[in-house]
Amino acid sequence: MELETLKSTDGRFGLINGTAFEAIDRVNDALYWGALDYFRGNGFMWVDVPTLTRVTGACENVDTLYSVDHFGRNAYLAQTGQLYLEAKIPRHEKVWTVITSSRAEAKVDARHLNQFQLLEFEHRGGFESLLNHVEGTVKAMVAGAVANAPGELALLGRSPADLAEYLKPFNRISYAEAIGLLEGTPLEVGWGSDLKHSHELRLVAATGGRPLFITHFPKAIKFFNMRVNRSDDSVVNSADLILPHSGEAVGSAEREDDYALLKERLLASSMYSILSKRGVALSEFEDYLSLVRDNPILHSGCGIGFPRVSQSVLGFSDIRQATSYPLNAETLY
Amino acid sequence: MELETLKSTDGRFGLINGTAFEAIDRVNDALYWGALDYFRGNGFMWVDVPTLTRVTGACENVDTLYSVDHFGRNAYLAQTGQLYLEAKIPRHEKVWTVITSSRAEAKVDARHLNQFQLLEFEHRGGFESLLNHVEGTVKAMVAGAVANAPGELALLGRSPADLAEYLKPFNRISYAEAIGLLEGTPLEVGWGSDLKHSHELRLVAATGGRPLFITHFPKAIKFFNMRVNRSDDSVVNSADLILPHSGEAVGSAEREDDYALLKERLLASSMYSILSKRGVALSEFEDYLSLVRDNPILHSGCGIGFPRVSQSVLGFSDIRQATSYPLNAETLY
Repeated sequence: MELETLKSTDGRFGLINGTAFEAIDRVNDALYWGALDYFRGNGFMWVDVPTLTRVTGACENVDTLYSVDHFGRNAYLAQTGQLYLEAKIPRHEKVWTVITSSRAEAKVDARHLNQFQLLEFEHRGGFESLLNHVEGTVKAMVAGAVANAPGELALLGRSPADLAEYLKPFNRISYAEAIGLLEGTPLEVGWGSDLKHSHELRLVAATGGRPLFITHFPKAIKFFNMRVNRSDDSVVNSADLILPHSGEAVGSAEREDDYALLKERLLASSMYSILSKRGVALSEFEDYLSLVRDNPILHSGCGIGFPRVSQSVLGFSDIRQATSYPLNAETLY
Repeated sequence: MELETLKSTDGRFGLINGTAFEAIDRVNDALYWGALDYFRGNGFMWVDVPTLTRVTGACENVDTLYSVDHFGRNAYLAQTGQLYLEAKIPRHEKVWTVITSSRAEAKVDARHLNQFQLLEFEHRGGFESLLNHVEGTVKAMVAGAVANAPGELALLGRSPADLAEYLKPFNRISYAEAIGLLEGTPLEVGWGSDLKHSHELRLVAATGGRPLFITHFPKAIKFFNMRVNRSDDSVVNSADLILPHSGEAVGSAEREDDYALLKERLLASSMYSILSKRGVALSEFEDYLSLVRDNPILHSGCGIGFPRVSQSVLGFSDIRQATSYPLNAETLY
């Protein structure tokens, strides 16, 4: 098999017309349908969101924004449709969408793509319901591939045994427990630091090798609208899903439903501090803030990075092997 | 009902939280699933395409390109994923995708959106098969709405009788016949002119009010890779689907599979002439041209503008009524 060659972004149109990529395409189709069937089967409604937006659509990482001139206004390529999905919660209990997420990552490596399919949902419900739906969606993706592309998985060197761990209950540890597990190892980090890819893979290995939720991150390193834990206000009710091989594949959280607290956290966020230095006004967030003020409904949601799931299921060491047109700072198709 | 207010792009987050938009959301969800189920049920495989691309991804209309700086290279927001889908044809018989299509339309009107969901497929097969699949997909969308959102359609003033015409065989006329039908009317146009919205609606009315394919357009006004008709080389094997209310909702065509002819048509196209004046080199198209040279397979495909179908099914006079976040030159969400 030509799997190693698929790490290359040169001659891509030739590479994706090999036998290996034909099988990868079919696995990806099965994974995609696994997620969509889960959404439909669990009462989530599809909605459309924009991907050329104010800074509110670009709120994963302000350092990796693609800027676009939109008839004299500063627009950005959306990193997430989250806030636009949240705007549907006053009328709908459960919504989902899929966007092409864009990240202007300057660093070229085996883990990052500058564009990728992002499956997102929002729903009225709290933390337990959130984690159950994230786990349900990812399991449905894997089960879809096992059921509908078994020959392709075999051709790519993946057996049902390799994927059995994905179909068992996912593990869960808190960020504090994660820090504890890393203590005394060469990967030790202090409380308040973000976890890197190497930490993630170590933690997955340390907890038995199956998908792992890491919950309750320090609020300072997470997005401003993640809901502060009511028993411990140093952390938010967030959960990242870490997969074998690819690492963080899903980010999820409850959303802050206390208007005053939300506004306070926005103003105190490092994102807002960076944005205001660039001339972005608070009014850019006014539509979103008003929605929370007028409809304080507990809700939560997630974004599932499709190629991270695909890479993990396929057991690849490089995300470029899992997607047809892997965009990075050095290439353009 | 507040349907008239939905033409406004001001206070959009409030407008989409009314009763009418709740129903519109549910109709859109049913339309979306109608298309996706059709694709799956007919053996089309989902594939992912980039939306930040070379000019090859932006080939509907070079006058409405959004430019993006991609680490020192000129990139564009894709108007279509067509060429990236076509690149899958050597390995797969039928593929589909859905992208957010971006068009930098300066003109604000009731018909155009600067971003919209575009459902696209490509398949190995010629003209009859193409039109059957386009018709099948649009019918499946309408049937999905009738079956799964009947109450919402009724709330929005649409009865099953209003949609009965969409479920009968679509009409078909050639471009030459269309010109003939307009002759002697105030809307008369000469052969070689493109058809405007007013022409489209007149032709739908003149042929009985149901969805209408207009086929075999003059090659000079269509995209360079549409396949030249082998009996009449003044026209291409194309078909636009015109819907009541919204007009052109689908563009479709066979793709040129004769490499020499394809290259000749690219070099002779007004698009290429405009692009080369802007410094775009022929090499930008090399990957695509090579694919056709190395894999001359007769294939064809289409792009379905989702909100045009939605607007038509809902009987709206303004496309902004059919979508949550209608982007145009004057607004940004």
